[in-house]
Amino acid sequence: MKTLRNDRFLRALLRQSVDRTPIWMMRQAGRYLPEYRASRAKAGDFMSLCRNPELCCEVTLQPLDRYPLDTAILFSDILTIPDAMGLGLRFVEGEGPIFDKPLRTVDAIRKLSSPDPEGELRYVMDAVRTIRAALGDRLPLIGFSGSPWTLATYMIEGCGGHDFARVKRMALEEPEAFDQLARHLADTVVQYLAAQHAAGADALMVFDTWGGVLSPPAYARFSLAPMAHIVERLAELAPGVPVILFTKNGGQHLEKMAATGCAALGLDWTTSLADARRRVGDRVALQGNLDPITLFAHPDRIREETARVLADYGHGPGHIFNLGHGIVPQTPPEHAAAMIEAVIELSPPYHR
Amino acid sequence: MKTLRNDRFLRALLRQSVDRTPIWMMRQAGRYLPEYRASRAKAGDFMSLCRNPELCCEVTLQPLDRYPLDTAILFSDILTIPDAMGLGLRFVEGEGPIFDKPLRTVDAIRKLSSPDPEGELRYVMDAVRTIRAALGDRLPLIGFSGSPWTLATYMIEGCGGHDFARVKRMALEEPEAFDQLARHLADTVVQYLAAQHAAGADALMVFDTWGGVLSPPAYARFSLAPMAHIVERLAELAPGVPVILFTKNGGQHLEKMAATGCAALGLDWTTSLADARRRVGDRVALQGNLDPITLFAHPDRIREETARVLADYGHGPGHIFNLGHGIVPQTPPEHAAAMIEAVIELSPPYHR
Repeated sequence: MKTLRNDRFLRALLRQSVDRTPIWMMRQAGRYLPEYRASRAKAGDFMSLCRNPELCCEVTLQPLDRYPLDTAILFSDILTIPDAMGLGLRFVEGEGPIFDKPLRTVDAIRKLSSPDPEGELRYVMDAVRTIRAALGDRLPLIGFSGSPWTLATYMIEGCGGHDFARVKRMALEEPEAFDQLARHLADTVVQYLAAQHAAGADALMVFDTWGGVLSPPAYARFSLAPMAHIVERLAELAPGVPVILFTKNGGQHLEKMAATGCAALGLDWTTSLADARRRVGDRVALQGNLDPITLFAHPDRIREETARVLADYGHGPGHIFNLGHGIVPQTPPEHAAAMIEAVIELSPPYHR
Repeated sequence: MKTLRNDRFLRALLRQSVDRTPIWMMRQAGRYLPEYRASRAKAGDFMSLCRNPELCCEVTLQPLDRYPLDTAILFSDILTIPDAMGLGLRFVEGEGPIFDKPLRTVDAIRKLSSPDPEGELRYVMDAVRTIRAALGDRLPLIGFSGSPWTLATYMIEGCGGHDFARVKRMALEEPEAFDQLARHLADTVVQYLAAQHAAGADALMVFDTWGGVLSPPAYARFSLAPMAHIVERLAELAPGVPVILFTKNGGQHLEKMAATGCAALGLDWTTSLADARRRVGDRVALQGNLDPITLFAHPDRIREETARVLADYGHGPGHIFNLGHGIVPQTPPEHAAAMIEAVIELSPPYHR
């Protein structure tokens, strides 16, 4: 591991002792920041921003200049892989991502390409290298990808799902073809994340945004198994790099997620950190889990809720403070500051 | 208890032995049935249908004429109470419920009325009486209400929520006023459900559609506590009537829900029935939990998944088969039949 001036986040991921609880925010480089909106306006549409390594670096650093956060996270999108596979990703204002050429047949699954991280996806690796150089030894950098199930969901639905009827139906009626798709996506994610690590990412996170819509057996087969494959292969290709798994609404699956060998689990706010720690805390670090909507309330309430989350985890190492999901675009930036200050001021007693 | 020719559902609610697992479907009287769409067209808009006891009875009986289901459920809406409070309920096609006069101030909370079940809400009681008379001793009838948290969510947001920012902010910033609202709604729900029982409902269900969006302490205070109050008061006002609590995405709260003294818990498909039974099955019956999207698949797959749900619960009494959420409007009616047939054919061995 390279020597960093601030290694709280990486130490906490390994459940080593720290002076205070490290903190970062999902979507910390995002629309709630006026400086982000200015950079985004320079880029034009969202994917042009993702494809521009200098602008990616600029927006990645913006929250770090504003707040004393403990890690950077690559600015990119979870859907770069299916975009590189030629599905035609667009973002429609107020509607989220759309694929012009969604995946609808078993034959189309068989024909999917394997995008080269230093080829079609080189713009992501260039962004990692640019950010890594700009950060120097100041802070660690997180690389990330969508989970295979979550990628498949967008690829098959063609957009963010409501009831996920298409993707669930394919998984039910063509389970072998779906397994093949999930394995192909998992192998692609492995190469993509290993390349991000080689380019300078110190930790890797897998965002499983839609795993929580599945029944337990469907989750085990279609979401967890491909994520377990990713963790296993990364242990060979990028030994020692900590991997964080985050299934939104996955609070019932924590034991199985921890058994993959990942370093940490991300938790949304619907799970108690104390319960989660009792269930899996001797095996993994836990990252979370303030409800992002809390940041709309008065700063005094934000401080109280932050204190509650810290107390919920309790004493000892292995906690990384975060929101339970991405920060909401309408959040006042000074309210995020109130949360971060509260973590810095209130967490040291938990580490004595 | 009155003597019914088919009392499987009521026996299962009390965890008494049955010959096979009883089955009904949430939203069994609904848009997936062409006969429902015809009745709805006669009524005009959705609330006109709800306010017409004869048409409510007609649509309540439609799925019972088509399928060998084990209970009727009152056709109505979960938002009749806030509508009767004067908030101006409308249904916009494709957008769901809208309140023209949402609840936005602490002062407005203090001024909320207490609708009389045999006054402003008499149309619901008339529907219960009409259905009860039409059913005779054929089948039991379920009455229902939205949970206080779920009612408050719609009342404050003014519509179905996306991130529930308004209602969560009020609960955070004005917790005492919110408690007062929740208690007022709980008391109103108690009167409403007791009156449904007096009018002929044999079991009562509380639909907590949005409890699952809360953190555990917020769920305990704002969703569960008012539901516990409802169960407790109904035990006095309508002794012996079984109450079913259903929090969508509430799989992490089952122990606390069972401790309210309710007869049964509804489960969505993200929770394993076997796990749920291990956690609470000695205290309550369990109702669920096939993913409604399963009914889009081939009938062979529907049968397999139905068999899996039956096996997940396992042997012995206390299981009521249901979907994990309402049947989806696009469902082919013959696919619902495949599920019902599978329960009838495959469940008897679990009761020997």
